[in-house]
Amino acid sequence: MERIKPRTLSGFMELLPQEQVLFDRMVALLRESYSLYGFTPLDTPAIEASEVLLAKGGGETEKQIYRFTKGDSDLSLRFDLTVPLAKYVSIHYSDLSFPFRRFQIGKVYRGERAQRGRFREFYQADIDVIGDGKLDIINEAEIPAIIYQTFTALGLNRFQIRINNRKILNGLFALYGLEEKAGEIMRTIDKLEKIGAEKVRAILEEECSLSPSVSGQLMDLLSTSDPVTALEERKGENSLLDQGIEELSTVTRYLSAFGVPADHFMVDLTIARGLDYYTGTVYETVMLDHPEVGSICSGGRYDNLAEYYTEKQLPGVGISIGLTRLFFVLQDQKMLNSGIGTAPADVLILPMTEDLTAAISLSTALRQAGIRTQLHCEQKKFKQKLAYADKLSLPFAVFLGEDEVRSHTATVKDLTMGQDLTEEALAALNEQGRYKQITLPVEEAVAYLHRRLAERETLPPILDL
Amino acid sequence: MERIKPRTLSGFMELLPQEQVLFDRMVALLRESYSLYGFTPLDTPAIEASEVLLAKGGGETEKQIYRFTKGDSDLSLRFDLTVPLAKYVSIHYSDLSFPFRRFQIGKVYRGERAQRGRFREFYQADIDVIGDGKLDIINEAEIPAIIYQTFTALGLNRFQIRINNRKILNGLFALYGLEEKAGEIMRTIDKLEKIGAEKVRAILEEECSLSPSVSGQLMDLLSTSDPVTALEERKGENSLLDQGIEELSTVTRYLSAFGVPADHFMVDLTIARGLDYYTGTVYETVMLDHPEVGSICSGGRYDNLAEYYTEKQLPGVGISIGLTRLFFVLQDQKMLNSGIGTAPADVLILPMTEDLTAAISLSTALRQAGIRTQLHCEQKKFKQKLAYADKLSLPFAVFLGEDEVRSHTATVKDLTMGQDLTEEALAALNEQGRYKQITLPVEEAVAYLHRRLAERETLPPILDL
Repeated sequence: MERIKPRTLSGFMELLPQEQVLFDRMVALLRESYSLYGFTPLDTPAIEASEVLLAKGGGETEKQIYRFTKGDSDLSLRFDLTVPLAKYVSIHYSDLSFPFRRFQIGKVYRGERAQRGRFREFYQADIDVIGDGKLDIINEAEIPAIIYQTFTALGLNRFQIRINNRKILNGLFALYGLEEKAGEIMRTIDKLEKIGAEKVRAILEEECSLSPSVSGQLMDLLSTSDPVTALEERKGENSLLDQGIEELSTVTRYLSAFGVPADHFMVDLTIARGLDYYTGTVYETVMLDHPEVGSICSGGRYDNLAEYYTEKQLPGVGISIGLTRLFFVLQDQKMLNSGIGTAPADVLILPMTEDLTAAISLSTALRQAGIRTQLHCEQKKFKQKLAYADKLSLPFAVFLGEDEVRSHTATVKDLTMGQDLTEEALAALNEQGRYKQITLPVEEAVAYLHRRLAERETLPPILDL
Repeated sequence: MERIKPRTLSGFMELLPQEQVLFDRMVALLRESYSLYGFTPLDTPAIEASEVLLAKGGGETEKQIYRFTKGDSDLSLRFDLTVPLAKYVSIHYSDLSFPFRRFQIGKVYRGERAQRGRFREFYQADIDVIGDGKLDIINEAEIPAIIYQTFTALGLNRFQIRINNRKILNGLFALYGLEEKAGEIMRTIDKLEKIGAEKVRAILEEECSLSPSVSGQLMDLLSTSDPVTALEERKGENSLLDQGIEELSTVTRYLSAFGVPADHFMVDLTIARGLDYYTGTVYETVMLDHPEVGSICSGGRYDNLAEYYTEKQLPGVGISIGLTRLFFVLQDQKMLNSGIGTAPADVLILPMTEDLTAAISLSTALRQAGIRTQLHCEQKKFKQKLAYADKLSLPFAVFLGEDEVRSHTATVKDLTMGQDLTEEALAALNEQGRYKQITLPVEEAVAYLHRRLAERETLPPILDL
């Protein structure tokens, strides 16, 4: 038979089983965190009609789209979860209640240039709150709490949420009559961390033709350690600026009531997050020890979710986590907690009799008790079966030989206890009700395993000390 | 602005929020059931190189493939989860431990003709056990237990698992020298339920040219109410037949130890499940009250998972649930349990003061207690907010007015209690610690809500009485 060399496309993440368990654990925790804040899960097709998906048109993204025809249909794979949300809300408007709070965790596709840590298929984990006509500022104030709770639940510790309000920059530009240079100026400001204040100021004056006075005022504001106070002093100069200051102050005022520690939060007036879309608060989240990674959770407030589909005004606020890239980074930085228990089962039953009724009955009893159980009935040597358990990090093995079957017992071996335990250590463990190996009546064996497994600590998937 | 009419492609399922919660609950229960049997989760890309995905080539499926080019690459969307598994096991062979037990729940794509209840994008929920060279028959005997446990967990009751062993039919064909007519005969046998024994026998004799004696023996076997006993009498005539009888008898013998009630199981010698792939036990699962739906969970034993990629012999056994179609059928038959609580939050906080600190702090405390909470701070009338809670079926509302904030209390309203409760009924509920409305110190309010929410019954997503 002619064989094809199997391969997975470059730019497509495919995990080994132990890694997949960690990834899935992260997804489960995201779902849980998002649910705590009253978001409902949503799923939309990965394929959409091109004319619908690309209604907004143009832009860098369009080149990256996976677009193709099937029959007469011009189809595209979704490149984010925001456009499908806009479509969804437009179609199902009359069936939804607003504010509509949804989360969606799903794969999106971008045919980017293949590069280490860049993926063509990747998971995004998004939440959005969509208002019908209006949306209160409290929704913007709540987002940092969701970001904080989510990453903390994952086990991340050294991160900081940075926020800005687009009305502040836009108000300043209006104040100085710089609206037409807004894009140019923002791209320059964005380089502040990379090239420093002096160079940014030089570019603002030389290339963007800002007067020294204006560029000086801008740079003062962008460089101050207390932007909120500095902004308060600028009140009354421009109504948009005032509104931005008011909103930023509301968002920061409620932080502590929302449970966000001050050290996990910072106002950063340089954050813009694109030119067209966001209109109010914008968010970025950085790993303090890995600034090179960039923002791991970004988003903001927008005024028109679905203007390409409907005349209805649908303002919203949302954030997105690029989960596949985050997982890659965590793996790369050795920040994944492999100690969380990635074994596919809790108990491996090793029958040693020809008739398997007793072993099978025990597997049924264990499963009914909620214990993940595998029967190992392959024709392999006993040693090979234990090596299998070891390789998969299965915590317990149960032996059922002639003696056990005859006496309705089971022998439970704790595979997590090392070979080199001293007798004293073993005795101390026994006093705690933990045995390296113990033979018990079948029902007691089930109860013993249940108790031992319940004692295990639930650890987060990220190790960040 | 020119607007595009938003639409979702036909053949693509897109659910409303309440439906999505039910769908997700089904997925969660499948994951849980599969995990109880020691299967590890897996995820593979939706896009594969066409040459890899279509290595097997030909067949009905190939026409349905979503195939396209991006740059120089000839790509295809996966049409099932089995070919990606074969690819995965071939690539990662040396990193895996065998038997390798994996489950995968993911979207697959088939450009079928649009038709009610047919989907072009649909979820499959698969499990497979892959052996390295050999795989014990016990793995085949365990599958009915997994099917039984899985559907029971979902809430389905009136279903039956039907099994056969391909070696029996193949052995009989060998015995009668009918190997070359196997396909034709099996297609005919498959019509037994539809057209009846008499017509099947006529076709077997007239079109397949079977002698009356052979067709009579075949029909006797296929029509008997006790095929296992009938088969035992046929032992010794052909070694393949003997092996099939032996395997079928092993699978049925251990059923009760595996916890499968006899009435949920049946041997059905007419089941073939395609010609090429399966070599041993094959499974179908039917809804007893809805035979028109066909099999809702099918699969079987195969000898060569990945012969197109590797010379390694990788036998396996697996089953697949077409989840999207199943969901459609359940919805169509009104068998989805909308009573399971599809609300996006447990508590809606309605602040009635300008300063929101108290309301926000309460939301934080509730979320820390694991209670799904939404703050409703929109500028709407009180009545509109209650209508919102009602429309989303939120079970509890919490009011925080001036009085409550001043006295550090919260007023909890149970929205599940109807307006028309008599005073007696209300008094009886109060005696159980359940109040239509009660004002409590904040901490007690959190504890009260926690207790009330914990009391709720966990119901399965399928209603099958």
